[in-house]
Amino acid sequence: MEKKDFIYGRNPIIEHLESGGTFEQILIQKGIDREVSGRIMELAKVQRLPVQIVPHHRMDRVTRKNHQGVIGFTAWVVYDVLSVIVQDCYERGDVPLVLILDRITDVRNMGAIARSAEIFGATAIVLPMKESAMVNADAVKTSAGAILNVKLCREKSLSHAVRMLRDMGLKICVADQGAPSMLADLDFKSPTAIIMGSERLGVDTSLRAKADSTFAIPQLGKTESLNVSVATGIVLYEVVRQRKQLST
Amino acid sequence: MEKKDFIYGRNPIIEHLESGGTFEQILIQKGIDREVSGRIMELAKVQRLPVQIVPHHRMDRVTRKNHQGVIGFTAWVVYDVLSVIVQDCYERGDVPLVLILDRITDVRNMGAIARSAEIFGATAIVLPMKESAMVNADAVKTSAGAILNVKLCREKSLSHAVRMLRDMGLKICVADQGAPSMLADLDFKSPTAIIMGSERLGVDTSLRAKADSTFAIPQLGKTESLNVSVATGIVLYEVVRQRKQLST
Repeated sequence: MEKKDFIYGRNPIIEHLESGGTFEQILIQKGIDREVSGRIMELAKVQRLPVQIVPHHRMDRVTRKNHQGVIGFTAWVVYDVLSVIVQDCYERGDVPLVLILDRITDVRNMGAIARSAEIFGATAIVLPMKESAMVNADAVKTSAGAILNVKLCREKSLSHAVRMLRDMGLKICVADQGAPSMLADLDFKSPTAIIMGSERLGVDTSLRAKADSTFAIPQLGKTESLNVSVATGIVLYEVVRQRKQLST
Repeated sequence: MEKKDFIYGRNPIIEHLESGGTFEQILIQKGIDREVSGRIMELAKVQRLPVQIVPHHRMDRVTRKNHQGVIGFTAWVVYDVLSVIVQDCYERGDVPLVLILDRITDVRNMGAIARSAEIFGATAIVLPMKESAMVNADAVKTSAGAILNVKLCREKSLSHAVRMLRDMGLKICVADQGAPSMLADLDFKSPTAIIMGSERLGVDTSLRAKADSTFAIPQLGKTESLNVSVATGIVLYEVVRQRKQLST
């Protein structure tokens, strides 16, 4: 893992993009030369890379070196196209299991979730363009490298992704501790997409409204919720348990 | 959470102990006045507090203030007596579920495990005196406070604890990815103690030899193992699923 976590400066970033190089994310400082920011956004758009316009102090938190108002975070992974991945899965004769992460912003949780997803054979992990943890060196490390072996897709709109997955025959299941059904009551043997939200925010209401089913994980204690990476591991385990008939 | 994480100095530590105060752990610097170290060890023994004799640089890593060769880490939790907790559980008419953590040294994992244990109603978590993460402010935070609501027991010898639990009627089950049986093949409806080891070391062979059963968690991918807090969450979920008949 000798990759640097970011590069900075107008020319290095533009040249990297022009030569077909990619970034996990690009930060542009508010108010910089329009020609520069315009060119970067144009190049980023081609590759569907997220660009954030941020104030000066946000840039300085990343580096105090002469960044000239432009920072690009190293891409550790190549993002795949969701519809293609699901189609491929069907063509292999497999039953899709797509994991959608709604606003999981903690890098360590992201890493642990990717690790579980790879181990339990998830078809893909879907992340939103915004409000998601970066797939950086820490995420790779926490995932024990697994994040490099799992299909990752990045979507501008999770709502749109959910609609598409439904059209492709997947049942949409949402984790929601207020749900009357328990995890093990659901049938996960058919093609399924599971939406997990952050511990603090849960799954966005507009996404929850698109669910075919919601489920809760049984809780006996008084603590509010499981850690989201533990909860996700449990859900994936339950799917594999049902599909492989591993229960007693 | 305004507690300090440690106090230092000979008199403060001795006075705290003499007044019945406790510590999570005490560090004594190698080679300090024997009378001082002897008195501290004597007082610590009464409360069964772990004392470590360490070199000077280890002390300095904690604080460079004038520690006089003695540092005591704040106790966040009161440790319970395992046999009493299990006996109480039986007397309430409940079925014991004891979680034994063999050399889990990462504080964040410890916190996440305590959170799952509280949520899934574990009777107690058993930790070894040595080679275990400290229950400090970080552990409390990562557990979302749950670690304060779960029974914790600290044992000088896990082997001895396992023998005692067996004598009290618990079946000893060990997580071991090399085991031929899968988690869901085991029957967890009777009184059970589960031993989880660290990702790197697994469960100690002498402990594994005392198991009534070993089990693996199904893995389809190529990543070596789940994060230990995720694995523990899955195991506890499976026990609750079986005991509450929550499956389809």
